[in-house]
Amino acid sequence: MSAVQRPRIGIIGTGAIGGFYGLMLARAGFDVHFLLRSEYPAVSTKGLVLKSAVHGALTLNPVQAYNNAADMPRCDWLLVGAKTSSNASLAPAISQVAAEGAKVLLLQNGLAVEDELRPLLPDHLHLLGGLCLICVHRAEAGVIEHQALGTVNIGYHSGPATAEERQQITAAGADMFKTAGVDSMAAAELGQARWQKLVWNVPYNGLSVLLNSGTTGLMANVSSRALIAAIMDEVVAGAGACGYQIPEDFAAKMLKATERMQDYLPSMYHDYAHQRPLELHAIYAAPLAAAAAAGQSMPRIEALYQALQFMDQRNTQG
Amino acid sequence: MSAVQRPRIGIIGTGAIGGFYGLMLARAGFDVHFLLRSEYPAVSTKGLVLKSAVHGALTLNPVQAYNNAADMPRCDWLLVGAKTSSNASLAPAISQVAAEGAKVLLLQNGLAVEDELRPLLPDHLHLLGGLCLICVHRAEAGVIEHQALGTVNIGYHSGPATAEERQQITAAGADMFKTAGVDSMAAAELGQARWQKLVWNVPYNGLSVLLNSGTTGLMANVSSRALIAAIMDEVVAGAGACGYQIPEDFAAKMLKATERMQDYLPSMYHDYAHQRPLELHAIYAAPLAAAAAAGQSMPRIEALYQALQFMDQRNTQG
Repeated sequence: MSAVQRPRIGIIGTGAIGGFYGLMLARAGFDVHFLLRSEYPAVSTKGLVLKSAVHGALTLNPVQAYNNAADMPRCDWLLVGAKTSSNASLAPAISQVAAEGAKVLLLQNGLAVEDELRPLLPDHLHLLGGLCLICVHRAEAGVIEHQALGTVNIGYHSGPATAEERQQITAAGADMFKTAGVDSMAAAELGQARWQKLVWNVPYNGLSVLLNSGTTGLMANVSSRALIAAIMDEVVAGAGACGYQIPEDFAAKMLKATERMQDYLPSMYHDYAHQRPLELHAIYAAPLAAAAAAGQSMPRIEALYQALQFMDQRNTQG
Repeated sequence: MSAVQRPRIGIIGTGAIGGFYGLMLARAGFDVHFLLRSEYPAVSTKGLVLKSAVHGALTLNPVQAYNNAADMPRCDWLLVGAKTSSNASLAPAISQVAAEGAKVLLLQNGLAVEDELRPLLPDHLHLLGGLCLICVHRAEAGVIEHQALGTVNIGYHSGPATAEERQQITAAGADMFKTAGVDSMAAAELGQARWQKLVWNVPYNGLSVLLNSGTTGLMANVSSRALIAAIMDEVVAGAGACGYQIPEDFAAKMLKATERMQDYLPSMYHDYAHQRPLELHAIYAAPLAAAAAAGQSMPRIEALYQALQFMDQRNTQG
């Protein structure tokens, strides 16, 4: 594959996720354009810096950075790494930057994020979801710290593709990441992939905020570990009610993998610490609503969600 | 009733509860003796001070204060206001201070506290539980702040009394408090009274710690209010499974009464703030075990308990 045949990539929302994958793709020779808001001054002058425990220290400078979607060239793939809560407000920019038949890939956790964005996008766009198994956070404007992992699991949500084309598109997306040295695979069912990712996100994101602790502390204590396991079981039950069978040993594997990880503070912890709104809608409200509609209650998750709503409202009003 | 006919009262554990009721009884002319540990120096020199929004500023000085049970006279009523977690270690002192056929009244919240103390007491003692509906806390050594309420609901647990004598004893206990200007009544069923009190204690004690908030903040937020109501429903279901029917509108009344209250920080909040161990066994573990034995799960309460165990262990180890 020569550089000229490669798709042009637009990164919408260059936080930790958009920055990490955009930088890796640009470093591999892809033509990557970054749409930024608050970080535009820093990134357009100092570039993007990645401090990675896996890939070492990398700098991308100059960066093809924009603070206005109208200035960007039309892109074939759009990677959306913004918070789920800003998707609706980003829809006009996404539509403007997208080439005809472009692929819009939401690199976001939670449920129903594509369902909510879809009505705001033109029909010719392909909409996909990407679940990122990665430990990464934004240290300061334009500086990203990457602790571990990086796998992107890509599923097709909706758009003009036939069943066969859907497979081609998700495979092409996975190839794009793999070319950039990032592990990736195509998911047959986006809903399944989203629920499986929730098995991790629902307990760890919320409890890191509620109990003010990283993963090591949460796993070291018998009670919080049991709570995490019970919450994971509720996610698995909710997924099952919604038609997604999560393998029986999946939660146990997540627990073990997290125990082996270096201490990690999930994105929700950082959002809370910086008094940013928490992604409670995508990670809690949407799964609770989907499970409830399927007749499945998830009482521990509902309690966690209510406690987090209290904390979020106090945190962002203060 | 003349003063000489009045029972001699011993207060075991003079924190907020023991101090408040002991002072009120002494003020009414009862012969009250206080067993203290860490507060002995302060109370024996400066007396006991009550700052009450209901009764005004009251001082009891001198106080019949002791730092050794062996020095105390034998008492007819023993009021135990210590933390439930110290009952076992206080059993020898209680036994020593008790007159023949004395009444031991545990002024404590939670479940099964009498069951756990009973085997450590001699058979001739009557064991009773008292549920205190009161907003009170210890401001400093020997100084008690009383915001509101005070009712003591007294039930007989075990001892040598016949059914008729049980009624006489609980009625006599209630009369003793009423003589001291404290509202009080005899409960026909101690188990019922304990479960009803848990309807309040289980949500507010734990959530005040978990969410670092007083009652006003917890009631003002739609999410935490809904969580409190859901937790109350679990307590009512647990009580029902254990054979105690709590009136249908009881939880709703508790919510409304709490909304009307001045902002209040429950005792567990103060324990956490002072890095004292939380009373998780009596207020969470014992009700969870009783409900589970009766086939009733209380998932939100279990999750709250696990989160509090994590916080308590970090707090007291730090």
